[in-house]
Amino acid sequence: MAMTASDARYAYLGPEGTFTEAALRSVPEAGGAVLVPEPTVPAAIDAVRRGDADGAMVPLENSVEGTVNSTLDELAGGEPLLITAEVLLPVTLTLLARPGTRRDDVKRVITHPHAYAQCRGWLARHLPGAEVSTATSTAAAAFAVAEEGSTYDAAIAAPIAAERYALVTLADGIGDRDGAVTRFVLLRRPGPLPEPTGADRTSVVAFIADDHPGALLEILSEFAVRGVNLTRIESRPTGERLGRYCFSIDCEGHVADARVGEAIMGLRRICADVRFLGSFPRADGAAPRIRPGTRDVDFATAEGWLARIRRGRV
Amino acid sequence: MAMTASDARYAYLGPEGTFTEAALRSVPEAGGAVLVPEPTVPAAIDAVRRGDADGAMVPLENSVEGTVNSTLDELAGGEPLLITAEVLLPVTLTLLARPGTRRDDVKRVITHPHAYAQCRGWLARHLPGAEVSTATSTAAAAFAVAEEGSTYDAAIAAPIAAERYALVTLADGIGDRDGAVTRFVLLRRPGPLPEPTGADRTSVVAFIADDHPGALLEILSEFAVRGVNLTRIESRPTGERLGRYCFSIDCEGHVADARVGEAIMGLRRICADVRFLGSFPRADGAAPRIRPGTRDVDFATAEGWLARIRRGRV
Amino acid sequence: MAMTASDARYAYLGPEGTFTEAALRSVPEAGGAVLVPEPTVPAAIDAVRRGDADGAMVPLENSVEGTVNSTLDELAGGEPLLITAEVLLPVTLTLLARPGTRRDDVKRVITHPHAYAQCRGWLARHLPGAEVSTATSTAAAAFAVAEEGSTYDAAIAAPIAAERYALVTLADGIGDRDGAVTRFVLLRRPGPLPEPTGADRTSVVAFIADDHPGALLEILSEFAVRGVNLTRIESRPTGERLGRYCFSIDCEGHVADARVGEAIMGLRRICADVRFLGSFPRADGAAPRIRPGTRDVDFATAEGWLARIRRGRV
Amino acid sequence: MAMTASDARYAYLGPEGTFTEAALRSVPEAGGAVLVPEPTVPAAIDAVRRGDADGAMVPLENSVEGTVNSTLDELAGGEPLLITAEVLLPVTLTLLARPGTRRDDVKRVITHPHAYAQCRGWLARHLPGAEVSTATSTAAAAFAVAEEGSTYDAAIAAPIAAERYALVTLADGIGDRDGAVTRFVLLRRPGPLPEPTGADRTSVVAFIADDHPGALLEILSEFAVRGVNLTRIESRPTGERLGRYCFSIDCEGHVADARVGEAIMGLRRICADVRFLGSFPRADGAAPRIRPGTRDVDFATAEGWLARIRRGRV
Repeated sequence: MAMTASDARYAYLGPEGTFTEAALRSVPEAGGAVLVPEPTVPAAIDAVRRGDADGAMVPLENSVEGTVNSTLDELAGGEPLLITAEVLLPVTLTLLARPGTRRDDVKRVITHPHAYAQCRGWLARHLPGAEVSTATSTAAAAFAVAEEGSTYDAAIAAPIAAERYALVTLADGIGDRDGAVTRFVLLRRPGPLPEPTGADRTSVVAFIADDHPGALLEILSEFAVRGVNLTRIESRPTGERLGRYCFSIDCEGHVADARVGEAIMGLRRICADVRFLGSFPRADGAAPRIRPGTRDVDFATAEGWLARIRRGRV
Repeated sequence: MAMTASDARYAYLGPEGTFTEAALRSVPEAGGAVLVPEPTVPAAIDAVRRGDADGAMVPLENSVEGTVNSTLDELAGGEPLLITAEVLLPVTLTLLARPGTRRDDVKRVITHPHAYAQCRGWLARHLPGAEVSTATSTAAAAFAVAEEGSTYDAAIAAPIAAERYALVTLADGIGDRDGAVTRFVLLRRPGPLPEPTGADRTSVVAFIADDHPGALLEILSEFAVRGVNLTRIESRPTGERLGRYCFSIDCEGHVADARVGEAIMGLRRICADVRFLGSFPRADGAAPRIRPGTRDVDFATAEGWLARIRRGRV
Repeated sequence: MAMTASDARYAYLGPEGTFTEAALRSVPEAGGAVLVPEPTVPAAIDAVRRGDADGAMVPLENSVEGTVNSTLDELAGGEPLLITAEVLLPVTLTLLARPGTRRDDVKRVITHPHAYAQCRGWLARHLPGAEVSTATSTAAAAFAVAEEGSTYDAAIAAPIAAERYALVTLADGIGDRDGAVTRFVLLRRPGPLPEPTGADRTSVVAFIADDHPGALLEILSEFAVRGVNLTRIESRPTGERLGRYCFSIDCEGHVADARVGEAIMGLRRICADVRFLGSFPRADGAAPRIRPGTRDVDFATAEGWLARIRRGRV
Repeated sequence: MAMTASDARYAYLGPEGTFTEAALRSVPEAGGAVLVPEPTVPAAIDAVRRGDADGAMVPLENSVEGTVNSTLDELAGGEPLLITAEVLLPVTLTLLARPGTRRDDVKRVITHPHAYAQCRGWLARHLPGAEVSTATSTAAAAFAVAEEGSTYDAAIAAPIAAERYALVTLADGIGDRDGAVTRFVLLRRPGPLPEPTGADRTSVVAFIADDHPGALLEILSEFAVRGVNLTRIESRPTGERLGRYCFSIDCEGHVADARVGEAIMGLRRICADVRFLGSFPRADGAAPRIRPGTRDVDFATAEGWLARIRRGRV
């Protein structure tokens, strides 16, 4: 089912002009491919599951688009998919308006609630009297400003939206937290994993067998005892009833690494179910600190030793 | 600063007709008080911080309104607030339309993306050809249907929205997961905590000192060693840079319980900072399974014993 | 180097008439073999190492002969040996005298210090004025009473010593702790391990890499995370200097069990060295409580699963 | 019950001329006091319990006298006593003979089995043909050589035994392990503890409630979570039946330290019983590495914080 670049189609959380489109454009696979905006994360994911798209770029963590939980929940259920790449984008928020608007004229602002949350300090200082409305995405806000007859004076949106909607930038870097970034992931149907690079991340969802005290500690011990560090953990309700949880977990390393493999086998044995979501290069390129005794060669040495002592050769 | 009921004001995540309004109406404090919808979770919380409201009801977990992360992040930073009550509401989604609309006429549906995610199965079976648009909340979707000249035929929204926007119910219980619930919390400015009831929950945010391997395991051990069970944990980026985390943690019990007190003192000692978010009755009334040796009387007995042996009376 | 029974030689901690001889006589291998008493545990063990004996029976735990540490220390260093069987013997202490002695005549008693420690209550009640001397073993004490011209009236010794030294029993079961038992082990040169029986014990010595805080907890976690229960642990100075320790550890199960194998591979990776001392049937026949997820079939299932996901077949 | 030095009496594990006497003579309390040798560790301990002695010096760890277990077991049961001091002595073994004996004349050697174990290498090199007999202590061996008409040519014993029994030194430093030391403890009836010095040790015996899997891990976690390092641990059968264990544990720090106090209160809560054996200065003067967050001031700060948040002052 290989395709030439010109055949390839990638879905993303739209509309056009969001951070997610920018994330998708940053990966080599997207070059020359058809990029298809979808209204929701589930819709983008479904496009891949149905085979209408070869992959989908969706936000996973700390997005101003705010659909993180929805991504996690989609991946935890339904037809399995694999994360094959991640992208980190700085969250640079800009104030956009129709050409000719001056900053002092801005009385009515529109944006996504999470973007609003990140710009409240700036707004209080520079546009104290402005009224703020909310849209379903920062791009939708930009579009609302660009529309003919719009009642909004300015949108808070991603820089990419300026060009897309023919708006001008009245101010940029207006987020209260410098250096905030969003993590996006590229999803595909199951297939060969990306090769280990030495700076990888592995993502799994663990469904606990029963909600007994200490269940989480047991899960973490499976990683800790093999020297595998976690980079993210979230308990997520499974939807059966609040209080029944699964855990969405990212750890350092690739499933091809001996320590990661043994850790998630341990997880598999103590959990009701484990869904493997993929091993892929870290966008920040950070190599793990490997604890002594947990390199592949250490596992191989210990296996050789065990084989010998099982035959009584001590 | 006591107020009579008639003076009391409570903010909530609006608009009117959301599940959050229903949650607020279910608590005794709201009776006779002025209830004020706010456009975003941060806005509702700010109303309390500024003193414009006595409290705010906001969703915390698994909301169809999707603002969970925003609630967590707001509580983790800024002026401290306390959670003094929690409310669990079943997520009952309904298909609402203007009077006179038949289900077969429905071609264009509007709703919040998370509500859409929960109703996709039903929509595929009963309205396979319908086009779905998204709004910033289920109530905004209902309003969009109710507006004169609306281009939408129906909204997926909370039952409370039908009455609020003069719509009729074409179908109810259309969520794919029966029994899903949302957890809401009532926030107030710091003051006396709710009394222990024997079935309480305590919520804290722990900021780790540095991102060393095993940090999470150390945090969990502080709870486990005192027999305190966690009911929720999430690593959250602190905003400084992705990869720097804090942990949002709910545990069983009240901070007045000896085991909970000692556990969070331990947390305080190993963390860069700990923010206490409150101890309050569990909405589900579930009493904790208390591990032998962790009742208040066990702590008191051990303290008496330590005092004696420190004086050499063995 | 197979031998017929008539050729076989077994060493044991002597002299004749000790509990250790009784332990050796209880194992099938000893039938028809030459049994050789040795003056010390190291001497008995050296006989095996040199090839002068096919095996050696020595006390390991709670012996009235008191040579436990010496057994552990001998096994931890020197040429490797394997434990191939264990024997549990009740510690039944008897008061033995030359024929014609009445209990009222007993003024001077001789025994091993540990046997004395176990009979002090009985002596205080029944022979309050008697003077107690010590010998290097209970059998040596019996011999001292049996010698012509002995100045001792009675010995506290094992029942087997009565016949051996032609003494009579003035009282039996005189130990203060009913039900105390001693554990003995049969040692051999390296060779095939005893087959798993479902009720086995595995013994290892773990030398820690450096004396860092938490080293012991790490060691125990390797066992705990695979559901392997410990039945004995002792920190032992390695002799280099006090404070440098190794750990002598017995656990449930056979090294052929997947969970035991993985646990001691883990031990091997985090320790400076691990010496495997053997897997052998438990003398008490107690089968382990196996934690869910730690049977051999659970390990095999997890391995199959890992192999699949490593190929991207999720 | 204060006594002048001339009234004070101290028991020790005899006979005269052992390492234990040397240990006792090294502590200030022994200056001018009457020192009373006792034949066994239990006898020395009983002298204190009965009030016949003000204290007793007994070996605890790695003694060539080999009575370690007996000391542990005596302290774990019976009338409670406190360890108030510890002494470390290098194990310097010497070959002693009657004046006029030359090394080449030595054919028959006598010593304690543990001393023999430590000198086997030297004996094999320098006295390969010598026959070795065993005595109940190294001092008893020296005495056996000194006796008129002795059939032994030389004893392996402590240097102090030469003067005591008028023997001459044929060789010294003949132990195979240079730098081996023995640890002795001074026991007293309950009374005020030694003051904290900043380099202390605390000793306890923990009786587990039931022999469930993970019991030991729970015990160690109580120490680990408060940053208290263990320096020794041994599972010891309680005598009820083999397999029922208590744990004899030494840890760093003084029970007056907040972290040690909280750790052993935790131990007390999860165990069937805990016997406190004392807090006393370490003989090696080694100060503990104190983990961040576990100093007394950290505990005090956390207590103040807890008191505030319990009143809702966040």
